[in-house]
Amino acid sequence: MPKISSRGIEMPQSPIRKLVPLSNAAKERGIKVYHLNIGQPDLPTPPNALEVLKKVDRKVLEYSPSEGLKSLRERLADYYRRYRIEVDANDIIVTTGGSEAVLFAFMSCLDPGDEIIVPEPAYANYMAFAISAGATIKTIPSSIENGFALPPIEEFERLITPRTKGILICNPNNPTGYLYTQREMNQLRDLVKKYDMFLFSDEVYREFCYTGAPYISAFHLPGIEENVVLIDSVSKRYSECGIRIGAIITKHKELKKNVIKFCQARLSPPLLGQIVAEASIDTPQEYMLEMYNEYVERRNFLIDSINKIPGCYSPIPMGAFYTVARLPVDDADRFCEWCLSDFEYEGQTVFMAPASGFYTTPGYGRNEVRLAYVIEKSELAKAMKVLEMALKTYPGRTI
Amino acid sequence: MPKISSRGIEMPQSPIRKLVPLSNAAKERGIKVYHLNIGQPDLPTPPNALEVLKKVDRKVLEYSPSEGLKSLRERLADYYRRYRIEVDANDIIVTTGGSEAVLFAFMSCLDPGDEIIVPEPAYANYMAFAISAGATIKTIPSSIENGFALPPIEEFERLITPRTKGILICNPNNPTGYLYTQREMNQLRDLVKKYDMFLFSDEVYREFCYTGAPYISAFHLPGIEENVVLIDSVSKRYSECGIRIGAIITKHKELKKNVIKFCQARLSPPLLGQIVAEASIDTPQEYMLEMYNEYVERRNFLIDSINKIPGCYSPIPMGAFYTVARLPVDDADRFCEWCLSDFEYEGQTVFMAPASGFYTTPGYGRNEVRLAYVIEKSELAKAMKVLEMALKTYPGRTI
Repeated sequence: MPKISSRGIEMPQSPIRKLVPLSNAAKERGIKVYHLNIGQPDLPTPPNALEVLKKVDRKVLEYSPSEGLKSLRERLADYYRRYRIEVDANDIIVTTGGSEAVLFAFMSCLDPGDEIIVPEPAYANYMAFAISAGATIKTIPSSIENGFALPPIEEFERLITPRTKGILICNPNNPTGYLYTQREMNQLRDLVKKYDMFLFSDEVYREFCYTGAPYISAFHLPGIEENVVLIDSVSKRYSECGIRIGAIITKHKELKKNVIKFCQARLSPPLLGQIVAEASIDTPQEYMLEMYNEYVERRNFLIDSINKIPGCYSPIPMGAFYTVARLPVDDADRFCEWCLSDFEYEGQTVFMAPASGFYTTPGYGRNEVRLAYVIEKSELAKAMKVLEMALKTYPGRTI
Repeated sequence: MPKISSRGIEMPQSPIRKLVPLSNAAKERGIKVYHLNIGQPDLPTPPNALEVLKKVDRKVLEYSPSEGLKSLRERLADYYRRYRIEVDANDIIVTTGGSEAVLFAFMSCLDPGDEIIVPEPAYANYMAFAISAGATIKTIPSSIENGFALPPIEEFERLITPRTKGILICNPNNPTGYLYTQREMNQLRDLVKKYDMFLFSDEVYREFCYTGAPYISAFHLPGIEENVVLIDSVSKRYSECGIRIGAIITKHKELKKNVIKFCQARLSPPLLGQIVAEASIDTPQEYMLEMYNEYVERRNFLIDSINKIPGCYSPIPMGAFYTVARLPVDDADRFCEWCLSDFEYEGQTVFMAPASGFYTTPGYGRNEVRLAYVIEKSELAKAMKVLEMALKTYPGRTI
C-alpha cells in the first residue's frame, strides 16, 4: 500500500471532530444533545436568498469567471462601502468560502518555510491551511484574564524573523468574541508597516458587534492599504454556510495576480452559491436587525448564565457568536468528552468545544471551552442548566 | 509592499488565459469568435437537474458533511456500479469540483519534493496543483504520430526515483481524446504494483467514449485496488461545470482519513451543487444518449474537416471532446494569437488552445493545437472554414 503524505498526518484532528462519534452515540441512547460546539447558525437563511433559487433561469449551469461573477463583485463592493471599506470590484476575488480565501491567501503570500504570527486562541483551521501551504504559524497566547485582548505588541515583534511574512487576526474573533480596539489596530498597523508585512484580517463576523465599540477593519488603517489581505465570507452574516462563498480583498496588484492564478487553476467558484450570495446582499435591514437582536439576547443570556455557575467565568464577548469560558475542571478535553459519554441530566447533555484545540502552545486552554450561541434562548437555558449539573458531578471538578 | 509567494509566480499562466484579452478585443471589433479553446460544453444541463433547484425546501442553507452528503455518495456508488466500478459510499469523498479532487489527492499523497509521472500533453492545471502541493511532475511525451498512445512503459520506469510516489493519467484523455487500451492499463498496473505507487486516474470523461474500445477504469485493474486514486466530476457528463462537484474515490483507508482532514479544514463542499448533482444521477438515458450522439457527430465532423485542410492532421480521438491537431504553422502559440489579433474571415475568427501549454518538455507541441468540439456542428463547420482560410494567409505557414 503506498505511503500517504506526512503533511496530512501532521494536520491536527480538531477536538470537536473527535467528539462527534460520542455525540452521535449519546443521541442513539436517546439523549438530547445541545450543540454549543459549532459555528453553524440556526437562524433561517433570508427568504430573498432562498427565493432566487426558484428563479434561476439558465439552460447551462456553466463555469463562472475564476475571480467570480462581476455582478457579485460589484455588489460586494457596494456592501463594503457601507462599512467604509473603500474597495472596488477589481479588488475583490470571490472564493469557495472563507476557507478557500485563507488557503489562497497563504498560497499566494507565503512560500514553504515562511512564518506568520497569530494571537491565540485562534480558529483551528488556520493551522490546517498553513500546513497545506508549508508555512509555519507562530502563536502568542492572549489571556482570559484580560478578556483575550491583543497581547502586547512587543511580543509580536519579538517573534519576527527573516521568514516572517505577516500577522493574522480574526476580528471580531472566533473563538473569543473579542473585538480589537482602535489602539490595538494601530499597534498592528505600525508593526506591519515597520516590517512591510502582510496583515491577514479575517472579518467574517463584522455584522456581529454588540457593544458600542466600533468595528475597525484592517482597511480602515491608513498607510498599509497594500499590506492588508482581507478574508471574508457570506456564510455567517446571512446564515448560508453551505453555499461556500467567500472573498479575498486586496489592493496589492501583484498579489491579486497571484491569487487569480490559484483561482484559475480551480476554474470557478460555485455558480449557484454566487447567485444566492448576490441576492443576499439585498437582505432587508429588518432581517439583519432581527438576527442581530437575537444574538444580542443570546449573548447576554449565555454570559450571565455561565458567570452565575460557581467556578465558571466568561469575559463579555464583544462580537461574533462565541465565547471562551473557564470552567472549574481539571481538563476541559476530558470534561467535554465525559459530558457526552458518561453524563446526562434528565435525558440531556451538552456538546462543547474544548479550547485546547484553539491553542498551539501546549497546556493552554486546559480549563477553557468555546461555547457558540447558535441555538435559541430557551434551548440555551436548558443547556446551561445541564452544564451546571454536569459540573456538580464531574469527577475531575476543581471546586 | 510585501513580497508575494514565488510559488504563485512559478505557476504557469495558461496560454489560453493569455489569449482571452485578444479574444475580447476581437469581439469588441465586432468579430465573431468561435470558441474551440475551452471545455465548457454548450449542451443544456438536464432539466431534472435544473428543476430540483425550484424544489429546494430548506430553511437554512447549512454546511453539509465535510465528506459530502451521504445520499449523494450513495447515489454516486450506484452510478459507479453501472461502470463495474465496485465502490461503496464510504470510498467516495465529495469535493468542490474535480479541481479540488486533484489538489486534495496531491496534498494527501505527496509531500513537498515528491514526484509523479504524467504522460503529456496533459491537462495544464495538474501542474498548478502540483506546485500548490510542492510536488514535482515529470512528464513523458506521447506523440501525435501514434495517436497519443501511452509512451513505452520503460520510459516511465526510467523516471522512477526514490521520490516517485505515483503516475497520473487522464482517461479518456484531455487534451488528446485518447482512450487507454487494456494492454496499456495492464502495463501501468504492473508498474504501479512493482513500485507500490499511487495511480491517480482522472476519469471525468468516461461518458464520452466513441469507439468500440472499452473504457478501462483504474478500478478495473485487479491487484492495485488500494493504489488507485480516482478523480471524478459531474461537470462534463451533465453539462454542469458551474456547480463544482467532484469526488475522490479510494479504497486506501489511511489515505481516506488524510483526504478527509483536508476536507474538514474547508468545512464542506457546496450544498446546492450537491443537491443538483444528486438529481443529475437520475438523468434519463435519452438525455445522455442524445448528448452522446451529438458529440459523436461533432467529433466525426471535426476530425474529417481538419484532416481535409492541407497540411493539417488530427488522429481520431476515441473519447472526451477534444483533439490535438497538427497544423502547418511555425509556431501554434503565435498562430493562435494571430488568429485573434490580426485575422478575420468574413467577420469571423477562431480561438484555439496552443498545445504547448499542455506540455512541459520545451519545444513540444509547437505546431499543435487543442480543439474542443463544444459548439454545434453548424458552428464547427464555419469555424473550420475560418481555420482553413487563416492557414492560407498566416505569414508563418509552413506549406
